[in-house]
Amino acid sequence: MFTSPLLEKLIRQFAGMPGIGYKTARRLAFYILKLPDDKAKELAETIIEVKSKVIECSICGNITETDPCAICSNPDRDKNIICVVEKPSDVFALEKTNEYKGVFHILGGALSPLDGIGPDDLRIRSLLNRVSEGAAEIILATNPNTEGEATAEYIMELLKPFKVKVTRISRGLPIGGDLEFADIVTLSKALKDRKPL
Amino acid sequence: MFTSPLLEKLIRQFAGMPGIGYKTARRLAFYILKLPDDKAKELAETIIEVKSKVIECSICGNITETDPCAICSNPDRDKNIICVVEKPSDVFALEKTNEYKGVFHILGGALSPLDGIGPDDLRIRSLLNRVSEGAAEIILATNPNTEGEATAEYIMELLKPFKVKVTRISRGLPIGGDLEFADIVTLSKALKDRKPL
Repeated sequence: MFTSPLLEKLIRQFAGMPGIGYKTARRLAFYILKLPDDKAKELAETIIEVKSKVIECSICGNITETDPCAICSNPDRDKNIICVVEKPSDVFALEKTNEYKGVFHILGGALSPLDGIGPDDLRIRSLLNRVSEGAAEIILATNPNTEGEATAEYIMELLKPFKVKVTRISRGLPIGGDLEFADIVTLSKALKDRKPL
Repeated sequence: MFTSPLLEKLIRQFAGMPGIGYKTARRLAFYILKLPDDKAKELAETIIEVKSKVIECSICGNITETDPCAICSNPDRDKNIICVVEKPSDVFALEKTNEYKGVFHILGGALSPLDGIGPDDLRIRSLLNRVSEGAAEIILATNPNTEGEATAEYIMELLKPFKVKVTRISRGLPIGGDLEFADIVTLSKALKDRKPL
């Protein structure tokens, strides 16, 4: 409908991205059209570069440009504590706390039979290999939802023979939240997991 | 904070786009990361191609890959009726109605003193040139907001010496709307512009 098939093509490509509707895609395409040439070129080059240079760390599975990644190759990180997460952005969230000094293991998702994601689709075997090479604690930090809980349970079972300490991140009321507005599952979990003061 | 500066760069570039927050930018960057190589390459190439091949029609100012654009060079379009709009996506909206058989003139925005947009920043001179070469009707289809109305008034004044028929798209209650929820300005305009049945 536009007088430029190329612009329509760009709109279609943006509209194919997650959470981007047709109108947003159109706005983005017009934004590209108005962008200075060098900025547009830079964006195109970054897309190509990300695809060619960003790889997975052969140890933890996190995204990286060097193998092993910056965390796995950092001598100050405690290699004996492995925090298991679903995806790279979870590492990002945990790193922001500036509290964790161990290393990570990225599963690449969570068990989800409905979506056809089974144990073989996740980086579970390499986790077991890492544990077999020696580890003091495995922190299961998969998401506190059905898939994440099932994945944590599943991995916990697999880790039993290793006699390694296995912990799960605590679930309860979010800090700054309000009891009145907490959902019933979180509230009952918070009550069940209450701690002595 | 990520272990890949390149991915962070891509996130920053997406976050610089209009209406894209940091979290959406992150989701888009991970989407690019998971995209098949050829699809990512295609997107990068489309961005470069759009920048190099999409130009402005020398007659109407619409975006095009050929000059004049598909509408201006279409022998079936009535060159005597010129519909004046603010931007290329307005042409898109009007073309969708499949009702209009005239041609367009894209101003490239609307008068907005607060944003420093004056008459010289819009494609007004070329509109006057087109009208001086002969036209039967000029339809002012700028947006029905403060800037659009002011722009329409301004152009109407400039067109007076040409003795050309000047019309303004009608404003009133949107079809499918509800009187109860109409804003007061639209409602008073709809009342004032009432038509005999």
